[in-house]
Amino acid sequence: MTTKSGSFELPELLSQIKGPGDVKALPEEKLTDLCEEIRHTLIHALSQTGGHLGPNLGVVELTVALHRVFDTPEDKFLFDVSHQGYVHKMLTGRADTIHTIRTPGGLNGFLLRTESEHDCYGAGHAGTALSAALGMASARDLKGDDNHVVAVAGDAAFTCGPTLEAMNNVSEATDKLIVVLNDNEWSIDRNVGALAKYFNALQTHPTFSSIRHKASEFVGKVGGESVRKFAHKVERNTKNLIFPNVLFEKFGLRYYGPIDGHDLGLLIRTFEHLKTQDEPVILHIITEKGRGYKPATSNPGKFHGLGTYKVEDGSTAAAATPTYSELFGRAITDFAKKDPKITAITAAMPGGTKLEIFKEEIPDRYFDVGIAEEHAALFACGHATHGLRPFLAIYSTFMQRAIDMIMHDMALQNLPVRLCMDRGGLSGDDGPTHHGIFDIAYLRGVPNLIHMQPKDEDEFIDMLWTMALHDDSPSAIRYPRGAGIGTTPKAEPQQLAIGKGEVLQDGQDIAIISLGHMYATALETVEKLEALGHSVALINPRFIKPLDAELILEYARKCKVVLTMEDHVLNNGFGTSVIELLSNHDVATPVKRIGWPDEFIDHGKEEQLRIQHGLTADHAISLVTPYLKASS
Amino acid sequence: MTTKSGSFELPELLSQIKGPGDVKALPEEKLTDLCEEIRHTLIHALSQTGGHLGPNLGVVELTVALHRVFDTPEDKFLFDVSHQGYVHKMLTGRADTIHTIRTPGGLNGFLLRTESEHDCYGAGHAGTALSAALGMASARDLKGDDNHVVAVAGDAAFTCGPTLEAMNNVSEATDKLIVVLNDNEWSIDRNVGALAKYFNALQTHPTFSSIRHKASEFVGKVGGESVRKFAHKVERNTKNLIFPNVLFEKFGLRYYGPIDGHDLGLLIRTFEHLKTQDEPVILHIITEKGRGYKPATSNPGKFHGLGTYKVEDGSTAAAATPTYSELFGRAITDFAKKDPKITAITAAMPGGTKLEIFKEEIPDRYFDVGIAEEHAALFACGHATHGLRPFLAIYSTFMQRAIDMIMHDMALQNLPVRLCMDRGGLSGDDGPTHHGIFDIAYLRGVPNLIHMQPKDEDEFIDMLWTMALHDDSPSAIRYPRGAGIGTTPKAEPQQLAIGKGEVLQDGQDIAIISLGHMYATALETVEKLEALGHSVALINPRFIKPLDAELILEYARKCKVVLTMEDHVLNNGFGTSVIELLSNHDVATPVKRIGWPDEFIDHGKEEQLRIQHGLTADHAISLVTPYLKASS
Repeated sequence: MTTKSGSFELPELLSQIKGPGDVKALPEEKLTDLCEEIRHTLIHALSQTGGHLGPNLGVVELTVALHRVFDTPEDKFLFDVSHQGYVHKMLTGRADTIHTIRTPGGLNGFLLRTESEHDCYGAGHAGTALSAALGMASARDLKGDDNHVVAVAGDAAFTCGPTLEAMNNVSEATDKLIVVLNDNEWSIDRNVGALAKYFNALQTHPTFSSIRHKASEFVGKVGGESVRKFAHKVERNTKNLIFPNVLFEKFGLRYYGPIDGHDLGLLIRTFEHLKTQDEPVILHIITEKGRGYKPATSNPGKFHGLGTYKVEDGSTAAAATPTYSELFGRAITDFAKKDPKITAITAAMPGGTKLEIFKEEIPDRYFDVGIAEEHAALFACGHATHGLRPFLAIYSTFMQRAIDMIMHDMALQNLPVRLCMDRGGLSGDDGPTHHGIFDIAYLRGVPNLIHMQPKDEDEFIDMLWTMALHDDSPSAIRYPRGAGIGTTPKAEPQQLAIGKGEVLQDGQDIAIISLGHMYATALETVEKLEALGHSVALINPRFIKPLDAELILEYARKCKVVLTMEDHVLNNGFGTSVIELLSNHDVATPVKRIGWPDEFIDHGKEEQLRIQHGLTADHAISLVTPYLKASS
Repeated sequence: MTTKSGSFELPELLSQIKGPGDVKALPEEKLTDLCEEIRHTLIHALSQTGGHLGPNLGVVELTVALHRVFDTPEDKFLFDVSHQGYVHKMLTGRADTIHTIRTPGGLNGFLLRTESEHDCYGAGHAGTALSAALGMASARDLKGDDNHVVAVAGDAAFTCGPTLEAMNNVSEATDKLIVVLNDNEWSIDRNVGALAKYFNALQTHPTFSSIRHKASEFVGKVGGESVRKFAHKVERNTKNLIFPNVLFEKFGLRYYGPIDGHDLGLLIRTFEHLKTQDEPVILHIITEKGRGYKPATSNPGKFHGLGTYKVEDGSTAAAATPTYSELFGRAITDFAKKDPKITAITAAMPGGTKLEIFKEEIPDRYFDVGIAEEHAALFACGHATHGLRPFLAIYSTFMQRAIDMIMHDMALQNLPVRLCMDRGGLSGDDGPTHHGIFDIAYLRGVPNLIHMQPKDEDEFIDMLWTMALHDDSPSAIRYPRGAGIGTTPKAEPQQLAIGKGEVLQDGQDIAIISLGHMYATALETVEKLEALGHSVALINPRFIKPLDAELILEYARKCKVVLTMEDHVLNNGFGTSVIELLSNHDVATPVKRIGWPDEFIDHGKEEQLRIQHGLTADHAISLVTPYLKASS
């Protein structure tokens, strides 16, 4: 495979795979070569686009085996989170566009029902596959069909409430379901909790040894490295295990495994057997994240999901400006060193949220609870009842899982949990499952909750410090993915007055109220409007809730038009709170609003998407100028 | 105990209990009498107020034992859902006001941190106690304190994602925690799922028999009925059980039990033992809902929570008008008889939502998944992918658990799940944990979702029918607790046009846009305004989303003032969508809004709370009349 000026040449076997039928048509002895080609293609294609390399390298044999044995779209494959769906895409007619993944107009980095008939269920958040699969199996049973439903979930999915709720319902829902537990000991970060220990223990059980032994005969001709590696793993794990399968069987799932998830022949034979079972089954496979690419196996955390890299050594370009996540991890850790009440809680994202800094430096006050946002929020409430100052770092889009706890536990009891919502705003390449553009809408109705967003890095640290000191109610902060505008935080953070905005510049014609990350666009808008001869006030509201009513009303009264800017949907957004305020006070000044429309936004480059949807200075100017002309 | 014209006389022993110290001071031989008095008091007091009688009669001995052995407020008791906290209230200084429970200004029907220092954690939604308890235990450990944390959870809590997530984190969070699994085979309705079967199996295990035998020696003097009853239960349950405690021990909880939860002496001795353990423990107790009151044990579903009743026979007054829930259960069942695609899903609330009608008549398309709203929503998505027409009935306040699924699974994939949100609006006696006054705020930002609310019963059926036929996107309906205004639905439902409101009467001065259940208040407002000589238009918007923009703009343009009315918070509410619309179209007509303020609303009678917070015709009139005078 070579990449020649935009065109993309697939290796020999892969170029013949136009759909699952072609996978079945290949002679069995070619399958190992096909897997090799898929790995090679993934490693090269993703070096140019970024993406979830490690997870996909781990499921090459699994995915080939599934398409060898089952028939999509009649049979249904549900991949939990679906960031490991690239191989599935390649085997279902999308190999020749895999190099476009995550690029504007290209393939989505997750599965989407709209992208292919072979994608029966989309995802981006973890823990949904087993539940949805049960629904599909139940629907199939009701309709009298006989297709198979296969849910593939990583070990981390079993730390998730929805997966565990579904487990409790398997036996009553259907007699025919195949669950694949893809156990690689890693979620986005290393897995935690009792179930992770249990899965580890399963790997060490004598029955696994015997299967492993049989598997090794087959694997022998493919290459014995995996077997040696598993043997090491067995020796490393000394945790006690009494009844290897009782947990799953208590939940009504017949347990098979664990088997080597890179043993293609074994996988195929196992699935052929599982197809014939008339009870729900779970197949436990052991795979290696990043399999076949040394930089990825050496650093599975980094290669879970990343940007572009050099194929030769996996090196990535160092960022010039620290990201908001990095600033967050550093700041909270520094605060906690001075304040023993501060604790840090993450839901399986120490790397993404950069709480790994806290983990490294203050391990006894660091808590990773797994992909368990509901529990994380409640656990934080428990801390808050005892006078601690918990910081809960969860991406804006994943915080949706904890809304009931934010309402019913934090806000109603007024417990001072600090919600730190990373990726608040567009999340570019990741697409609609990850854009954090709904949090104002789902939080603004929550009584007692303080919600804020910083315009730059310095203010970000001030806000975190303000949250640390605020013990009177829960508080939340949204901050964008990636780097800010490059301001260096001052040496000592400053405590901000709750509910007070700041006037960045005074003006008479237009009041621009620019929330957070829109700051650069706001500055550009100011400049262009001033060049047109208008007097522009620029206000940084700082607080979404409580709103600085006095300040905003003052400017709304004196200006001809108000312009709000937000990296959030317009429906029930920040601008909505401004028009609500003006309406409550009978201020009739027109309010024009810049933000995302009432639809799901595709993946793509942030700048392009902003142009496409009008989150630009030029669009802002076109919205407000009619009001300036009219009254001048 | 007698109730004499408002005063409330407590029985002898109970009248001496001013706090937990008094429970400890009682001679042990008096404790059984105390339990008897508590039961007697509960049965009589609640007959006047209504409340969760069954659950509280079931935990009398447990609660006495807890307060005998532990010391609140230093030790922490967390009662899951906390509807079983009445006995705890009575033992912590609130026995003399227990007759005020759920009445305006009286005790709340759940635990509230603000009500007593002995209430360390409030609740109203299920499944939060174990998580929050882990947070408290972790905080205690960090602070170096040595108090006990005891979480009491019913068997149904173990169908909940948060509880299961917490289970996975027990062993890593603390070495000191006591969990009481209060197993009564009933949640709000009979429990479902693999874990329920597992708990049943535990009851039948030989070790239980031996403990039961020992317990019976003690129980002998108290009265042997419970023992006989348990023996029956043992015979009834024949489910196989191999390893009675492996499930909990896999999660790092040392298992004790099951023991008779009405055996006070055994409970006290067991807690004394558990206090000394240096590892997390779970004590499995078997209790009987409604214990000691025959009407309640004969009908545990009815007596889980109910209104006033006659003490003699437990009879309750029949309602004159059918409730929205009853109309819902009947209508969906009738629709499903004609349409084999319709399925019905509930999260442990067949009684509350009245899907019990569907369960009875079409059992194969009825699914109760336990208190598992996340799974319920995903399971419904699975049905929708296969062309079924799933109706998911969950109270508005509990739907908060499924918001991520509504966004990420339903709306993003545009899967036509029908969300039926009972108790949409104020939930009177139940108070802030149950008021369904936030659903517009948390749903209006969701793209693709249709959201509606009917003004009366007839329109309700039309809307449900419209949802049944709408396969293009997810849809949601909110409808109030209790009965409507008494309209009789027409013989055949009518399909409504999506996004179209209706003009109930034309007018020139004021446009009243009254959402759903505010209809009666709107009619009163119209009448009074007309009596003052104003011309009033009355619009029923029907749809919260999509809004009937054309109709609302037409009336906003022709009238002097717009008045919106909603049984929902004003922040990000229905009225907000109207001002957003007018702002988008530069219509400067003032909009006044009636709804709940940005705070948590106490429990109480709906009418009183509406007066207190201005959801009345008179307040509406006072809001709009200034605009009528000004322009006339």
